[in-house]
Amino acid sequence: MESYFDNMLEKQLIDDRRDFHKYAEVKWTEFRTSSVVAKRLMDLGYDVKLGLDICVKGVQFGYPDEEYMKFQEERAITQGADSELVKQMAGLPGVVGILDTGKKGPVTAFRFDMDALNNQEILESGHYPYEEGFASINEGFCHACGHDGHTSIGLGVAQVLMKMKDKLTGKIKLIFQPAEEGGGGAIGMVKKGILDDVEYFFAIHVGLTKLDGLPLKSHGIICGVNDFLDNRRIDVSYIGKAAHPCGDPHVGKNALLAACAATLNIHSIAPHSEGMLRINVGKLEGGVSRNTIAPTANFQLECRGENQIVADYGEDKVMAIIKGAASMYQVESHIDIVGCTPSATSDEKAIEMVYSVAQDVDWFKEYHRIGSVGGSDDASDMIRQVQKNGGIGTYIGLGADFASGFHHSAFDFDENVMLPSVELLVKLVEKLQK
Amino acid sequence: MESYFDNMLEKQLIDDRRDFHKYAEVKWTEFRTSSVVAKRLMDLGYDVKLGLDICVKGVQFGYPDEEYMKFQEERAITQGADSELVKQMAGLPGVVGILDTGKKGPVTAFRFDMDALNNQEILESGHYPYEEGFASINEGFCHACGHDGHTSIGLGVAQVLMKMKDKLTGKIKLIFQPAEEGGGGAIGMVKKGILDDVEYFFAIHVGLTKLDGLPLKSHGIICGVNDFLDNRRIDVSYIGKAAHPCGDPHVGKNALLAACAATLNIHSIAPHSEGMLRINVGKLEGGVSRNTIAPTANFQLECRGENQIVADYGEDKVMAIIKGAASMYQVESHIDIVGCTPSATSDEKAIEMVYSVAQDVDWFKEYHRIGSVGGSDDASDMIRQVQKNGGIGTYIGLGADFASGFHHSAFDFDENVMLPSVELLVKLVEKLQK
Amino acid sequence: MESYFDNMLEKQLIDDRRDFHKYAEVKWTEFRTSSVVAKRLMDLGYDVKLGLDICVKGVQFGYPDEEYMKFQEERAITQGADSELVKQMAGLPGVVGILDTGKKGPVTAFRFDMDALNNQEILESGHYPYEEGFASINEGFCHACGHDGHTSIGLGVAQVLMKMKDKLTGKIKLIFQPAEEGGGGAIGMVKKGILDDVEYFFAIHVGLTKLDGLPLKSHGIICGVNDFLDNRRIDVSYIGKAAHPCGDPHVGKNALLAACAATLNIHSIAPHSEGMLRINVGKLEGGVSRNTIAPTANFQLECRGENQIVADYGEDKVMAIIKGAASMYQVESHIDIVGCTPSATSDEKAIEMVYSVAQDVDWFKEYHRIGSVGGSDDASDMIRQVQKNGGIGTYIGLGADFASGFHHSAFDFDENVMLPSVELLVKLVEKLQK
Amino acid sequence: MESYFDNMLEKQLIDDRRDFHKYAEVKWTEFRTSSVVAKRLMDLGYDVKLGLDICVKGVQFGYPDEEYMKFQEERAITQGADSELVKQMAGLPGVVGILDTGKKGPVTAFRFDMDALNNQEILESGHYPYEEGFASINEGFCHACGHDGHTSIGLGVAQVLMKMKDKLTGKIKLIFQPAEEGGGGAIGMVKKGILDDVEYFFAIHVGLTKLDGLPLKSHGIICGVNDFLDNRRIDVSYIGKAAHPCGDPHVGKNALLAACAATLNIHSIAPHSEGMLRINVGKLEGGVSRNTIAPTANFQLECRGENQIVADYGEDKVMAIIKGAASMYQVESHIDIVGCTPSATSDEKAIEMVYSVAQDVDWFKEYHRIGSVGGSDDASDMIRQVQKNGGIGTYIGLGADFASGFHHSAFDFDENVMLPSVELLVKLVEKLQK
Repeated sequence: MESYFDNMLEKQLIDDRRDFHKYAEVKWTEFRTSSVVAKRLMDLGYDVKLGLDICVKGVQFGYPDEEYMKFQEERAITQGADSELVKQMAGLPGVVGILDTGKKGPVTAFRFDMDALNNQEILESGHYPYEEGFASINEGFCHACGHDGHTSIGLGVAQVLMKMKDKLTGKIKLIFQPAEEGGGGAIGMVKKGILDDVEYFFAIHVGLTKLDGLPLKSHGIICGVNDFLDNRRIDVSYIGKAAHPCGDPHVGKNALLAACAATLNIHSIAPHSEGMLRINVGKLEGGVSRNTIAPTANFQLECRGENQIVADYGEDKVMAIIKGAASMYQVESHIDIVGCTPSATSDEKAIEMVYSVAQDVDWFKEYHRIGSVGGSDDASDMIRQVQKNGGIGTYIGLGADFASGFHHSAFDFDENVMLPSVELLVKLVEKLQK
Repeated sequence: MESYFDNMLEKQLIDDRRDFHKYAEVKWTEFRTSSVVAKRLMDLGYDVKLGLDICVKGVQFGYPDEEYMKFQEERAITQGADSELVKQMAGLPGVVGILDTGKKGPVTAFRFDMDALNNQEILESGHYPYEEGFASINEGFCHACGHDGHTSIGLGVAQVLMKMKDKLTGKIKLIFQPAEEGGGGAIGMVKKGILDDVEYFFAIHVGLTKLDGLPLKSHGIICGVNDFLDNRRIDVSYIGKAAHPCGDPHVGKNALLAACAATLNIHSIAPHSEGMLRINVGKLEGGVSRNTIAPTANFQLECRGENQIVADYGEDKVMAIIKGAASMYQVESHIDIVGCTPSATSDEKAIEMVYSVAQDVDWFKEYHRIGSVGGSDDASDMIRQVQKNGGIGTYIGLGADFASGFHHSAFDFDENVMLPSVELLVKLVEKLQK
Repeated sequence: MESYFDNMLEKQLIDDRRDFHKYAEVKWTEFRTSSVVAKRLMDLGYDVKLGLDICVKGVQFGYPDEEYMKFQEERAITQGADSELVKQMAGLPGVVGILDTGKKGPVTAFRFDMDALNNQEILESGHYPYEEGFASINEGFCHACGHDGHTSIGLGVAQVLMKMKDKLTGKIKLIFQPAEEGGGGAIGMVKKGILDDVEYFFAIHVGLTKLDGLPLKSHGIICGVNDFLDNRRIDVSYIGKAAHPCGDPHVGKNALLAACAATLNIHSIAPHSEGMLRINVGKLEGGVSRNTIAPTANFQLECRGENQIVADYGEDKVMAIIKGAASMYQVESHIDIVGCTPSATSDEKAIEMVYSVAQDVDWFKEYHRIGSVGGSDDASDMIRQVQKNGGIGTYIGLGADFASGFHHSAFDFDENVMLPSVELLVKLVEKLQK
Repeated sequence: MESYFDNMLEKQLIDDRRDFHKYAEVKWTEFRTSSVVAKRLMDLGYDVKLGLDICVKGVQFGYPDEEYMKFQEERAITQGADSELVKQMAGLPGVVGILDTGKKGPVTAFRFDMDALNNQEILESGHYPYEEGFASINEGFCHACGHDGHTSIGLGVAQVLMKMKDKLTGKIKLIFQPAEEGGGGAIGMVKKGILDDVEYFFAIHVGLTKLDGLPLKSHGIICGVNDFLDNRRIDVSYIGKAAHPCGDPHVGKNALLAACAATLNIHSIAPHSEGMLRINVGKLEGGVSRNTIAPTANFQLECRGENQIVADYGEDKVMAIIKGAASMYQVESHIDIVGCTPSATSDEKAIEMVYSVAQDVDWFKEYHRIGSVGGSDDASDMIRQVQKNGGIGTYIGLGADFASGFHHSAFDFDENVMLPSVELLVKLVEKLQK
């Protein structure tokens, strides 16, 4: 079987990853990436499903307006997306490729996320993607979280599994998910029922963090995580009243001061004894000009808790502060919960399975049963759904040296992790046959 | 007539002032000062009224508890107060001395305030009262606003007027008021009717500020002020919930953070285009120990506006912030308005009268029709009452070099101002005869 | 002489005003406006000066970058500016038209400012410019401060004065100034020496505020102001460090929290007893996304004081807070003073001149010697220069009913004020002949 | 052996506990408690050491001033302390009782802390100590953390061990420690060498918290903890400048605003990914009166980290904020580190020992190898010293239902825990013989 994981596959993984990296697409606009994935799966012989066949509408978070979507679809087509496939997507990127062996056997699913981030990639020598010429050409978007690698690994797995199709039983679902980064891309697929027959579920992520808080380096593996944070994303806008700060200062209702007060006090929320609480106001914009009392201000925050109790506590306190600051400054407040992701836990049995299979993949040398996702990932939505139906699942960390931290403009990871990752996932499928 | 204002009177003024200074008494506890004043007036032949004869109950601000009052009464008696007179005061210091000439003529009143401040006087060489041995022996209390001088001037005026009684007509009321410093000592006297028959009213204050913002030095006089601020004094207490900051931080409701947020944001209230607004949170106490989430916090503030509109605006904003901060931190709030003083304006005619008489007092060399009180003084309550009944009044600034600023622990003023001040007030009475 | 101020002139004033309004141009981009003005003055026979002949370089505030200026020049030409004139302006809009009678006599200058604001005009029925079809077509720019009217009045004055040229003596300078709104458009002209020979200087502004704080309505006039605020405009940027708020929160240096702390505390700066202090952080932007600790934040503020002492005090406190907040959060700070305008005072003699002439203009019915500019205007730079050389000057408020407040998106003023304003200024010139 | 743990012992434990509770003494003033303990140990035949024989000077935190200590010593003597013993203590409460069997064997030490807290005990029906008449008579002091019970247990252990002396080998040290609550009472004993020969060390605490965050109830036991927090206690005072908020607001330097800003921002310090960080500003006092700009403010905080790295991080951030806030408001800052306690870890072997012995004590029914101290306890200083010399140690949680939370004014615990606790400790000694 070694022959499946050769130099050619490695080259393909790297080429794919760099292609996805170059044409970075953020949540809900992964039309080109989905098109490339769909076409490749079709060519390999997968039963490929798109758009409303794999996703329900109305549960997306941060879904852009029509004009923006139109623009992004066109941009994607200009950059090589198949216009017919884009049409089939009906505004909902994402691909599910199904390999049904026709034989009785396990139903296994893998989740690969595809979206980039709203960061401007650093364009300087010293940054590998820039030096090698595959830095993102889509201004303001960049793959700073490794999803380009995940998608490539998914395509590698697709190729190898199809080659060994005859040896397999049951059904395999390769889920290429959009909008992991704050878009709730998973929940639409869950609600469509994609996960309902799945018995074994695996999601992957390069990097991750060990329990000692240090990053998982190349050759390391984390077989499961229990710390998916329960995550609520909240947008706030304050509407006050403009006034001239000299001429009629008392007439103004200062929305910017309200937002600053809210921000500072939100960061002062006390921790919770039952688990990690992480709250961040990450973006704030207020006011129109220096000589006008700021009539409006907006800010975006994220409240994550180690479990629902902690997250509920955080959300309650956040809401009290948002409303309290508004009433302090007599401004109107609009609060939108623009996203939420539940916590979840890897299954012991799934962890052991990964742990055992990883021993057979040469690359891995440092084994951790449990690690930390250090935040949230809506793979948790999928794991919970699988568990609900009696299946098991886990979230695997694939160690990779990286440059700069996750979500940084200069993020990059060791591409060597991709080939052994394909091997690991394929061998998991094999193991499940037995 | 010159003979009235001689070295002996000067010595008496200085001796009196130093005596009052040494036995400094704060608002509502001026028992010894009142006793000394009452006795002197009686000896001079004044009709002296005390306690409930000159003041109604229930309108005082910051009136201490019974135990404290008992202690202060005893302290006063130990320091020389007449116990019988203290008894007559019935817990309400203050003295009104009436000189009724029996002849038809004007009813004139002078207001002298008597209370000290809750400051610890500085006890160091370089501080004149300390060097001369008349620094306050009442720990934590000190005459840092010159009321010791006002009271002495009042006694000087009493003495001279009685000597020239036969030349006088009408009635003269010498009002020795307690609790000017935030106690609302005037309003109880106003409500008792003390001012109802008064046609001419004069209050005095050493120092004051000229319209150019600089202090009025020795030899200067300000004949009136129009900027008594409308003043509201507010006490706030927040009641949260204690908790161990490590063991159960999420259980706490942090009253100290609420108070800090309120304080900062109260100081951020925008100015008002219709006049000066001055808001100060001057005192805050919160928490019980470093390793407990603060269950309580209290703070005291003052909101002053150049007129009622501005003060109303300030109070409205202050209240919004106090309540908003409480709801931010989910703590209970108790808000007490513990005092208020209205704005007022000196009468043109009274100003001109002072301006003209001041020309006849040698000491004065620099004349200002209008100056600034730079805050509030509840003489405004009395002026308003006099004006309501058709009388006129003003508030006179008696220039005096001083060491350190008002309300500072090292405050002291030029005692030479006292003799000419007596002369001025006496000559005002004479002028009113004509 | 009445014949000069007829219906035709009125129509021209209104047409001009609406034309300038429609093609609103903000500071340093008034190319079309300047071109229209220059051409008209040339046609009338004025000696017209532009660009480096009337302005020195390097003293401008908020001067845009080259690319933006190129774009604005082209926009102006597309909208009717003369490309040759724009070239002569050399990137410095502004026009000076000189009428030299050749006869000995007074040198008189008028200042008309031309720039619009960075506001998006409201485009709704009920807003007169929108209903009449002359709302700004330049997105995000609008005449919300009446400078469109000032420029039209200037052209009206130019026309009448030229007609009566033979009756005049001395020299008249019509100064059409760019960049009054925070750009320091005056100082470059001052430094070029434009004001050096001026004996009488008048600047105008529609609206203004009476000393009672109420707006000056149609038919009112304010003959001078003494409250130009000393104004410093400051831009701050904080550079911290991005980090994942769950994964490595301790690595971040939160620039947004620093900016919020700075903003709140800047608004807490205590007032100054020597005069009005107005500080406003009017615009703030920080952070990149909700799930990133904000690596950067920028804010813009204005610190104005009634005189230099007060403004210096404010600036000192602002700087301490900006730096203190930066060190609190261990972020780097960059502080730019992007503008400053001095305080100034109208001359008594100039005020009386205006007061007397206004009696002869039918429209005016309510006369105020002194009013309030309620902020700052760099006409103060010009007045100071004229005074330095022994001349006199004043700043005239031309009462006009208006819709919405100054700097609001729905601002509009009573166009009927323009014709009598031309008459007033022309009659001032006549008066100066005598 | 059962006979040792009878009703009489139980009664004695309860009597002792109530006696200590009634005469609650806070850190460094435990003279009466120490005297009672020393006397009892002497009577039992222990070699009793006091004062400078068991403690070095100069390493105490929060050691009171001489006057206060004198007062407390006298208070203690009035309440029954032996004046001779108090003299021997030389200002350093604390007792070590040594039982040297003379036979070769293990050196075992137990730590019992004795100090109360600066809380006013609640004096209301419903509060058991109040109802039973043993509420603290020392105003403002109360045993709200169970140390009264610890001391009683220590005396119980002392009694039983002495009775079974003949069966024992080696040496037993009963350490009655003062000033656990923020006073660093342990470190002076450690530095004196008290722990240097100890091979087995056990500290106890009633209550504690299970790993699930819930309190350990009666019948539960926790055999060790690994989460002693590294704790730094910091006192801050800001010195600004008083000024009248109306008269000369710009002269003031507002220490209270600086303290509020510091407090809010200190609570905004981001968490650390390597472990729990707990920072609390628990007490703040600022200002002198509402109508004075606050010249001074003081606050007390505690910064605890799961390990030294985390605590160092917290301290670094705290210091930056304290200094930054001071420079914001141009006030002087004085920062004192008034205490610190290291983190520590229970030894596996010691834990197993306790776990096994607890099976033999009837009362215990719910066994936890590991629990949480949920904060810090300077037993960690002793454990580290023992470990340094090759010994082992642990910190034992003795489950007890309690009323209200730790450090609350209404805290009380189930006295039934005391007898089985004595039994457990005695059986540990027996076990160590084998």
